[in-house]
Amino acid sequence: MVAPAPESCRQADSDPSVLWPDLFRQQLEHLLRWRRDERHFRSDVVSERLLRELVDHACLAPSVGHSQPWRFVHVVDDDRRSRIIDIFERENTAAAALYPEERSRHYAALKLSGLREAPVHLAVFCDEGTAVGHSLGRRTMPETLRYSVVCAIHTLWLAAHARGLGVGWVSILDPGAVRECLDTPPDWALVAYLCIGWPKEAHSIPELERKKWQERLPTETFLIDR
Amino acid sequence: MVAPAPESCRQADSDPSVLWPDLFRQQLEHLLRWRRDERHFRSDVVSERLLRELVDHACLAPSVGHSQPWRFVHVVDDDRRSRIIDIFERENTAAAALYPEERSRHYAALKLSGLREAPVHLAVFCDEGTAVGHSLGRRTMPETLRYSVVCAIHTLWLAAHARGLGVGWVSILDPGAVRECLDTPPDWALVAYLCIGWPKEAHSIPELERKKWQERLPTETFLIDR
Repeated sequence: MVAPAPESCRQADSDPSVLWPDLFRQQLEHLLRWRRDERHFRSDVVSERLLRELVDHACLAPSVGHSQPWRFVHVVDDDRRSRIIDIFERENTAAAALYPEERSRHYAALKLSGLREAPVHLAVFCDEGTAVGHSLGRRTMPETLRYSVVCAIHTLWLAAHARGLGVGWVSILDPGAVRECLDTPPDWALVAYLCIGWPKEAHSIPELERKKWQERLPTETFLIDR
Repeated sequence: MVAPAPESCRQADSDPSVLWPDLFRQQLEHLLRWRRDERHFRSDVVSERLLRELVDHACLAPSVGHSQPWRFVHVVDDDRRSRIIDIFERENTAAAALYPEERSRHYAALKLSGLREAPVHLAVFCDEGTAVGHSLGRRTMPETLRYSVVCAIHTLWLAAHARGLGVGWVSILDPGAVRECLDTPPDWALVAYLCIGWPKEAHSIPELERKKWQERLPTETFLIDR
């Protein structure tokens, strides 16, 4: 940890690079460009210490009303891990069947999870019943509670990538079946099921782009004035 | 931009620090610790070029099925900005009235948005009708489309902070009223309304913690095994 600036310090008035040098900004962009949704893991162990470090970082994420609604479930039981893989395979087969013939073959040829190989399964939930934060900021947009958990997941993802670790977000799951399998409190809503481990390869282009499923669109597509 | 490693490169097999030096990891942690939900802005202009750079970075975020459902609306019209402030003030007053007396006074004393001062208003939507990504990964958890937009917002937030810029996420808004005010397509769901500008001060502790609204809880609270 770099020695923090004193609590009362002002942002460098005209030169923010005093706080964040150009090299850091370039490396941050590099991190964003090379972060992938990982499905190809080596079998090497991820230590408990390292996993805890990732979760420590995730807890630095912003949350609505400082509600910190993230709940991390490290799935260590072999039987539970197997049942999650079964749930994924059932839903993945069902999803493939919904596409027209050619697209369905294309879909079936994609590898959409590394659940079998990944040394770490981490399920991430949102505690929708939490009193932490006293409901501030979520009366008209209660979904911001789950969005806070997404910010934590994305933070963990970047912290992992900065350590050479890959993260894959598996969403082809029945959330109710996952909750039942993991025996979690009724107020906890599944937000993501993550595979974490050492990736086999590094790529700056998403796998779905390399496999011709979907191209990246230019920024102009996404930005309008009003 | 640092020269990227060749597309086919393997992750540094036993030493990920080849890709990401220790100093970068320390600075990244520093960035995460000092990123705040900002409500106190200086009036200095944020250039169009800089805003575009932030949106470029945001578009590097992960998205389900590579669907890239983020839509950014730069609110430049003074009348529209004023109407958004009115919507916030109405909802903020309504929220204050729901707390018991002492908590309500505490709430009313908090500054919960920098909408008046922030040079940039950026509304962020999710295009729920998009065909991009061919629905991959969101049959059983369609909410992952909005979660992808949240990842883009969080990416923009970090890219902004690395440039000394502050971002405040305003959620005390009626999403329907915002959509109407901004005249956006019917399929676009509001995910966040952001204030962007140069912050007056830097803090490593969230404002809601400094103002005794809610403390930060330890990581142990959030991590369990199953």
